Amino acid sequence: MFEITQHTRLRRSPFYDATVAAGVTSFMTYNQMLLPTGYGDPEAEYWRLIEGVSMWDVAAERQVQIAGPDAARLVQMLVARDLSKCVVGQGRYVPLCNHDGTLINDPVLLKRADDCFWLSVADSDMLIFTRAIAGERGLDVQITEPDVSPLAVQGPKAEDTIAGLFGDWVRDLKYFWFEDATLEGVPVVVQRSGWSKQGGFEIYLRDGTRGTELWNVIAEAGERYGIGPGNPNPCERVESGLLSWGGDTDDDTNPFEVRLGRYVDVEREYAEEIVGLQALRRINEEGPKRYQIGVVLDGDTPEPSNAVWLPIEHNGARVGHMTNGVWSRRLKRNIGFALVSRDVTVGSRVDVVKDGQRVGAETVWLPFI
Amino acid sequence: MFEITQHTRLRRSPFYDATVAAGVTSFMTYNQMLLPTGYGDPEAEYWRLIEGVSMWDVAAERQVQIAGPDAARLVQMLVARDLSKCVVGQGRYVPLCNHDGTLINDPVLLKRADDCFWLSVADSDMLIFTRAIAGERGLDVQITEPDVSPLAVQGPKAEDTIAGLFGDWVRDLKYFWFEDATLEGVPVVVQRSGWSKQGGFEIYLRDGTRGTELWNVIAEAGERYGIGPGNPNPCERVESGLLSWGGDTDDDTNPFEVRLGRYVDVEREYAEEIVGLQALRRINEEGPKRYQIGVVLDGDTPEPSNAVWLPIEHNGARVGHMTNGVWSRRLKRNIGFALVSRDVTVGSRVDVVKDGQRVGAETVWLPFI
Repeated sequence: MFEITQHTRLRRSPFYDATVAAGVTSFMTYNQMLLPTGYGDPEAEYWRLIEGVSMWDVAAERQVQIAGPDAARLVQMLVARDLSKCVVGQGRYVPLCNHDGTLINDPVLLKRADDCFWLSVADSDMLIFTRAIAGERGLDVQITEPDVSPLAVQGPKAEDTIAGLFGDWVRDLKYFWFEDATLEGVPVVVQRSGWSKQGGFEIYLRDGTRGTELWNVIAEAGERYGIGPGNPNPCERVESGLLSWGGDTDDDTNPFEVRLGRYVDVEREYAEEIVGLQALRRINEEGPKRYQIGVVLDGDTPEPSNAVWLPIEHNGARVGHMTNGVWSRRLKRNIGFALVSRDVTVGSRVDVVKDGQRVGAETVWLPFI
Repeated sequence: MFEITQHTRLRRSPFYDATVAAGVTSFMTYNQMLLPTGYGDPEAEYWRLIEGVSMWDVAAERQVQIAGPDAARLVQMLVARDLSKCVVGQGRYVPLCNHDGTLINDPVLLKRADDCFWLSVADSDMLIFTRAIAGERGLDVQITEPDVSPLAVQGPKAEDTIAGLFGDWVRDLKYFWFEDATLEGVPVVVQRSGWSKQGGFEIYLRDGTRGTELWNVIAEAGERYGIGPGNPNPCERVESGLLSWGGDTDDDTNPFEVRLGRYVDVEREYAEEIVGLQALRRINEEGPKRYQIGVVLDGDTPEPSNAVWLPIEHNGARVGHMTNGVWSRRLKRNIGFALVSRDVTVGSRVDVVKDGQRVGAETVWLPFI
């Protein structure tokens, strides 16, 4: 355990003080920000998400705001998914690719106005990327990182918690739709969203000086439902089959390989305008070489979580990698995602190689649960 | 002190094991890699750099390799500095700007071949940026991050150390020039370079499996000169006036503001091809609004180092920020860089505001020493 030196490019979340008060014990870095990864009781944190309600500092999901006369045009140039029917107040999951069709981020897009969009981004620099494209194309847009910091409330009791705070209208929000609101004077955006399959909301704080206030108000409202601190949960997200960009993808992964082909409209017109679409069409025609499935490892002894890619062998030949590994508390098995050659069918026996040791496993479809 | 969770996007340096064996006590994150920031004895680490020789794991200075038929053309499109006279074996400091003329990185360029270049980058994602420009312009290049990890050897005894290992030819290397070499079979590039003003070299390891070997060979060769572990030294670099991109710059800083105007050839032809040059010309004509100078704070009691921007006031009005602050062990004063309005002349009295307290200071030219 080493000290992490503070510097201007490693930013604290507006919820930092609140998470420290709540007993945070570990962080990861994400978009040059400290993102809590645990509060000392992984077992309780997991079950709270599965059975109750959990609150997460996910301020590190930074917003890239694209505004101005050409904003809508630029956003559509950046994503291969057809956005023509997306209306103000609606969100969309929009994989972003570079010119080679490689997945470089997988944000949620929020259409704030006809000429203003937020990209709620994963851990890669989309300010640099979107500005580069806008600059090259001479578009009339302003691209900034606004003072916006999401706090996720997740779990089966999340809706009751959020409805108690904002009113029953939140129950009618469709997935990824959002509304502006205030909470005891704190300006927020309420969206049905979040990186779990347990249901819930993301509350986008719009004033970075009021993080502790917002945290405490939500903690108080959730008390009756047993709310407690948590974070994007490595176990639940693997069980649920949720992709981690940059975790389950490498510098050569395209959307078709990681179950995102349905977000690529290869039939789109104006393909030459859309970054990467020509490459994506080519990949789609040729057929992607890898695909993402699950592996269930032999044995029922819990192994530590694993965030390093491990080789997978099939009949003695290297066929791909296990890109994550967790002990599933519900399945009572060690499981993980596999990014492997399409030659490996689901239901195959494979070996996962860790520290020179081979562990047998069976390939399965995702999600696990 | 919290634990930092390992993940695939936070990479270890090839020298990680060696630095742990050498007693590293703290890290920062830099280009999604852990960069050592101390070995427990800042006083000794400082004087070793000033008077002897120090070795640094700076593998986090990642290389962006641009290769292919259009490589030279792309590189010249990316930098406003005229590279027409740069030959193979030569390096150049090349500030990179976006289309608004904002400084987005300040790498050292290594011309490896007529059609192959490395950018040894500061802490921002230049893979994403350079690929975006190449993709938009349809250039025939391959842009990759090769397996290359610099190790810096810095200080007045660095040349003797490196000459003892490689031969006296290294004494003839001009600043930023480099040569390929091997050291007990380990492939490296030897460059006269490094982020200090004490002289020295960067040894670019070209095989990430051999970091400990390279570290140990250098440590052994430097033993007679009292070599020891260190890192880019916050005190020395401030005394010497070295810019930290992203530390001393913000999302709106152009090269003219931070003493890099001499690397911008505004008279260049083909300005429309060079990313940001039209904006840089405009900024140059209008005159930059801020400039970078030094501040020497009143008092001679050492203050802790400071990596947060602090407001600077002049005659009661906000005029800019102190962008770093260190106790100078040679000057016996607290000093820092100031990014302030050009209205504040050198030799002025100003106030630095920290935690609501005002500390008097005098503005001076950089470097301090």
